[in-house]
Amino acid sequence: MNKLNIKNSENSVLKLRQALGKSLEAVDEEIINRLNKSIPLINDIGKHLINASGKRLRPLLTLAMAAQFNDFSKNPIILAAAVEFIHTATLLHDDVVDQSNLRRGKKTANIIWGNEFSVLAGDFLFAQSFELMVETKSINALSSLASAACKITQGEFQQMQIANKPETSLEDYFEVISKKTAELFGASCKSGVIVSGGNIEQQIAAYDYGFNLGLAFQIIDDLMDFNNFSPKMGKNMGDDFKLGKTTLPVILAWEKSNNIEKKFWIKTIKELKQGPKDLNKAIEIFKKYNIFEDCKNKSQEFIFEAIKSLEKLPNTEIKNYLIGLAKESVERSK
Amino acid sequence: MNKLNIKNSENSVLKLRQALGKSLEAVDEEIINRLNKSIPLINDIGKHLINASGKRLRPLLTLAMAAQFNDFSKNPIILAAAVEFIHTATLLHDDVVDQSNLRRGKKTANIIWGNEFSVLAGDFLFAQSFELMVETKSINALSSLASAACKITQGEFQQMQIANKPETSLEDYFEVISKKTAELFGASCKSGVIVSGGNIEQQIAAYDYGFNLGLAFQIIDDLMDFNNFSPKMGKNMGDDFKLGKTTLPVILAWEKSNNIEKKFWIKTIKELKQGPKDLNKAIEIFKKYNIFEDCKNKSQEFIFEAIKSLEKLPNTEIKNYLIGLAKESVERSK
Repeated sequence: MNKLNIKNSENSVLKLRQALGKSLEAVDEEIINRLNKSIPLINDIGKHLINASGKRLRPLLTLAMAAQFNDFSKNPIILAAAVEFIHTATLLHDDVVDQSNLRRGKKTANIIWGNEFSVLAGDFLFAQSFELMVETKSINALSSLASAACKITQGEFQQMQIANKPETSLEDYFEVISKKTAELFGASCKSGVIVSGGNIEQQIAAYDYGFNLGLAFQIIDDLMDFNNFSPKMGKNMGDDFKLGKTTLPVILAWEKSNNIEKKFWIKTIKELKQGPKDLNKAIEIFKKYNIFEDCKNKSQEFIFEAIKSLEKLPNTEIKNYLIGLAKESVERSK
Repeated sequence: MNKLNIKNSENSVLKLRQALGKSLEAVDEEIINRLNKSIPLINDIGKHLINASGKRLRPLLTLAMAAQFNDFSKNPIILAAAVEFIHTATLLHDDVVDQSNLRRGKKTANIIWGNEFSVLAGDFLFAQSFELMVETKSINALSSLASAACKITQGEFQQMQIANKPETSLEDYFEVISKKTAELFGASCKSGVIVSGGNIEQQIAAYDYGFNLGLAFQIIDDLMDFNNFSPKMGKNMGDDFKLGKTTLPVILAWEKSNNIEKKFWIKTIKELKQGPKDLNKAIEIFKKYNIFEDCKNKSQEFIFEAIKSLEKLPNTEIKNYLIGLAKESVERSK
């Protein structure tokens, strides 16, 4: 896996960020303005989170999809800000649910301000996202993002239900990551096409691109818990393992494990009895069965699907960057 | 205060419930259907809460407003279900934030299922409410309820900030209860008029009715913590007092208190050092300064405003019930 070359990655994301620089700035302005208008404490928590997450990948997708229809107007910008608010709200509540201490190297809001304020701040950002969407007057864009928001919470429920269960089926795992991660990627893309006047076929194509990209991103995120080739991304190795999260590497390894190894997974993932060497032992099992390659191949399949979906969208420079972004995504974290 | 006659109250609410019986049943069906479509655990939590809150007052207002325009169609029913989902979501998160054990005599969801599931279930209900609203295709109704949802979370933040502060100004208190309670009452009414085709003046009138009714309800709710003439309503006396909540009786009493009494409020509300006799001692101070009457008069003022607002709405039998509901509300809890 160390063959992955991080230096050459992210070129397309950078180019996309450059091409959409003004719109991205406008999204940040919109986010800051909305937070400033709220009460000071929400403002503090919101800015902490927004700064911590930083990459604005989902808003970038909304803007990129609109840009393919030459739409650089206010509506995609407002939707992009709404998408970031939904994402940030889920992060806030996720950290409460997971009782996390750190997110991307920074103390989480629940640690700084307490669970109570984190719950309320998440609610505010979520409600604010709908106020933003209303401003576009697009019921269809709103519908797409409301449906994603609904599925995210269902996905998080189901994620808790498969936690500590290495014997989880691939079907259940994919249902969880579809709802928890891929749906918002899909809706971020689709809503951009909706407000820019793309037809139904193009709306579905945009959704398919985002959805498949989201699946690939989640798999890579799962992988990085055991194989973090780029610690700057802020994810600490072993975080998911410590919580006994049922991620793709664990499921695939469980399927191939012998009885002794199965006992290891039961002890570490199900019973959460972990010693200091257990993370390395898990990694050894993954290497024995080529699990990292399997995960990478799986995410590659979704990337192919994502790129194929773009065929139905206009041929623009932006589309080339979106193809590049998808290809490079296997080599990076979300 | 014991002059309040509970026996004669609620006549108008009952008549309203009878007049709108079919629609109310349809709202409940809509709620159950949506919960059934979600995953089992959300279904359990949702039904627990929906059954526990029971009175469907906010949906009733939405339906009643629409009924004044002879609209008994699907749209007000869907909106009414959405309103109940928003309300239920805020109750779920409230109980997490307040670390409550009981709501209306029943164990709270956070006690049965844990904070994690309560946070996620609230998020689901909230997201589901927007999916419902989208179905009415009314951006204006959606806007009104999204704005209320946003204000509720701000109000809850501000409520936490004035907690344990008996010296809170009336202005700050009214800002909190406006956002936390009255806005959703207002939007529940306004959205009903919007989908039923009422004009802007009528929409504002409906909002004013709900908003003022909400203020009165919140004051009565505050009052009942110290003067619960109807324990069947499920609110336990002294719950707010135990948490050091800054409610209207406390603020009004603080303003009139002498130095010794002020020290009592500081000890009990600010420092939360409470002995078994302190609730009664608080009630004695309230009686000394006629605080219960003051609170009742204040809520009466809002009720007059609410009833006045109805003048701009069509003269129907339903309107008479709404007038009655407002008048009776001073004699009951929400």
